[in-house]
Amino acid sequence: MDKIHSLTGMLDLYNDGDRDNLSPKIFEAEKVLRRIFSNYQLNEMRTPALEDTDLFKRSVGDLSDIVNKEIYSFNDRNDKSIALRPEGTAGVIRAIIEKKLDQSAHKIWYLGPMWRYERPQKGRYRQFYQAGVEILGYPEGAPEFEIISIICSIIEEFNLKNCSIKINHLGSKTDKESFCEALVNYLEPHKDNLDIKDLERLSRNPLRILDSKNEDTQFILRDAPSIKDFIDSSSIQMLQDIRSQFSNICSIEIDYSLVRGLDYYSGFVFEAVSSDLGAQNSFLGGGRYDHLCSNLGGRDLPSIGMAIGIERFASLLDTVIPSNRMTSFLVVTSNLEPKAYKIAHQLRSLNKNIILDLQLSEASLKAKLRRANKNEADYAIIIGDEELKTDTVIFKYLKDENKNQETFSIDELFRFYKSI
Amino acid sequence: MDKIHSLTGMLDLYNDGDRDNLSPKIFEAEKVLRRIFSNYQLNEMRTPALEDTDLFKRSVGDLSDIVNKEIYSFNDRNDKSIALRPEGTAGVIRAIIEKKLDQSAHKIWYLGPMWRYERPQKGRYRQFYQAGVEILGYPEGAPEFEIISIICSIIEEFNLKNCSIKINHLGSKTDKESFCEALVNYLEPHKDNLDIKDLERLSRNPLRILDSKNEDTQFILRDAPSIKDFIDSSSIQMLQDIRSQFSNICSIEIDYSLVRGLDYYSGFVFEAVSSDLGAQNSFLGGGRYDHLCSNLGGRDLPSIGMAIGIERFASLLDTVIPSNRMTSFLVVTSNLEPKAYKIAHQLRSLNKNIILDLQLSEASLKAKLRRANKNEADYAIIIGDEELKTDTVIFKYLKDENKNQETFSIDELFRFYKSI
Repeated sequence: MDKIHSLTGMLDLYNDGDRDNLSPKIFEAEKVLRRIFSNYQLNEMRTPALEDTDLFKRSVGDLSDIVNKEIYSFNDRNDKSIALRPEGTAGVIRAIIEKKLDQSAHKIWYLGPMWRYERPQKGRYRQFYQAGVEILGYPEGAPEFEIISIICSIIEEFNLKNCSIKINHLGSKTDKESFCEALVNYLEPHKDNLDIKDLERLSRNPLRILDSKNEDTQFILRDAPSIKDFIDSSSIQMLQDIRSQFSNICSIEIDYSLVRGLDYYSGFVFEAVSSDLGAQNSFLGGGRYDHLCSNLGGRDLPSIGMAIGIERFASLLDTVIPSNRMTSFLVVTSNLEPKAYKIAHQLRSLNKNIILDLQLSEASLKAKLRRANKNEADYAIIIGDEELKTDTVIFKYLKDENKNQETFSIDELFRFYKSI
Repeated sequence: MDKIHSLTGMLDLYNDGDRDNLSPKIFEAEKVLRRIFSNYQLNEMRTPALEDTDLFKRSVGDLSDIVNKEIYSFNDRNDKSIALRPEGTAGVIRAIIEKKLDQSAHKIWYLGPMWRYERPQKGRYRQFYQAGVEILGYPEGAPEFEIISIICSIIEEFNLKNCSIKINHLGSKTDKESFCEALVNYLEPHKDNLDIKDLERLSRNPLRILDSKNEDTQFILRDAPSIKDFIDSSSIQMLQDIRSQFSNICSIEIDYSLVRGLDYYSGFVFEAVSSDLGAQNSFLGGGRYDHLCSNLGGRDLPSIGMAIGIERFASLLDTVIPSNRMTSFLVVTSNLEPKAYKIAHQLRSLNKNIILDLQLSEASLKAKLRRANKNEADYAIIIGDEELKTDTVIFKYLKDENKNQETFSIDELFRFYKSI
């Protein structure tokens, strides 16, 4: 029969034993991120994959590439446009408004799949994973330090090298607008030297020109106005304070050309980059967005948030080494022996710190021991016809050649297994 | 501005402090299930949310309600019908075939959102969560015991009362067909006494009549042929062996009227039910499906699997009590004090077993202490203007009235915090 294929740009994640594969790194990244978020007393929120398309038009902005070109939307049975979420913040704010939680403060994390209908290319998928943090209900100040602390913890916990955190301040909404105007005025006479992409940015979202990879554009920008001249001295002070407090933990850099792609940011913005990633070197970013909640019909809710692209982040991680011990459980009898499976079950209850890998095949003892070693099991427990008759088991140390194998009665095994 | 609402039947999960809420139970259920699956040395697989609609037509069967009425499908930009997955098994098998892993054995778990376009009703959502296990590549025998062992571990770990596991055997594909024929022949003369739903089942999927809740139908079925008379004695023996091995761990019941809704099951089938759930009392189910892989264009891959409906399962759980200790960190200074946030960061690195909840608001000491107690924090660390000047902090025990608060220098605090 014909095979059915996965859809373009959609990845299956599976750890089939190759530790250098991206999948185990993605699973490990998620596990550790969950733990970090919990330690900061952030609460998990999980919003649906599907939302009204208007939500993203009104939050991310319908001039952005995300909504304009890449959104994965379709009409439902009632001909209403719905979309698979391209990012996590809009749904969180929509939920907060809908649950009438926008009069109080919240510290939230989320993790899950997102979708963009992109042309498939290396390292970019139509379904991908993002984790994020949203700190809602607090004005500028402590939350800025807290979010940088979270990013430092992530970098420390995964022991990432060659990383740095870039920070900037876009000022108030008015500051941002004045700067934008000054930038457009400065670039106007240089229009002929901009490429199509930058010209498009100039008309749609001028701040993005600062992100341009075009060398000519970068040359033109050398004398452009800087956001530094449009923001308060207290904002500059905050950037310096953050750098000085955290710089012995992670490399922190003030970068006045850092802007973020999303319309809704103002105030403090940041990005974490790694020189191991090549041209697209950012794996985490975010900023303050004080006006999103009221733009979506809720109350004023000063907020700051960040998001991590899990695939890109996972690609930075070292090979994952399993931390738990493992017992390989080998039943090598001539008939199916129900009793053996009960023993395996009881061992699992007795010691939950050891993975018990019950080998389900009907292979020989030799083949099963080979597999136990290949899987890097620490111990093997063997039950054959002889052991069944005498109600015993053989216990073997696979990683310690100095220890001899032992024959235990079932009760002895249980007592022993609890204690190792 | 207009508010944007979530789509019909789509739930936001968020633990906003109410512990009796379903969300914290769902998060806890998932956390513990992940741990159990890992202890059985199952590997996580994560397939995309979207698949070619044909995949589900060919696996779940296009006569089933799931595909016929409930599938959440739409046309993509190339007018190809794609669907949000209604269940987890089809995607796993598709991935195994596509990765050419169908010549070897695999023990897999998955967990994630699924979608069905159902009429919204109590306890049923258009986006819901399922976890599942698929044991691929082993014929009947050990895997049957292993999967019942997993279910028993789930019931034990969550300390579920009023649960039992129902097991049955549908025989080989031919046995199942003969039984089906005998059942149809038996029911033919009773047709006038069946309701519309059961008549529809009779023509489309006769085995499902055994699930009928209609009392008249149940009365008619009292003398109907039983699957017991169509299967091998070795199959009956296996059911008895499973019951006798595991019955002192969980209640296990042989139920010859148990069938499963999906076309692809044959051989061993099972369901876990709870009398706490009302009429729809099953929260977990599965069975053997030896022909699905070859039906989807892969090799013969004898397989057995199970799935858990997370929302329904979570509703059975007791209120989740947080197991980690918590420190509430209170900065109560007249100005923003960057140094305080660095101390919080360092404490988090020094002791990862304690959640550190940094209170971000500008409230008074009294209000912050009240909040610390409300959140059931174990300790409070307080930094005020006085402490900043002298480089000290106040440490308070919130749950132990016999212990006095202490004033520490920063270094003393770090040493002490590591050790508690």
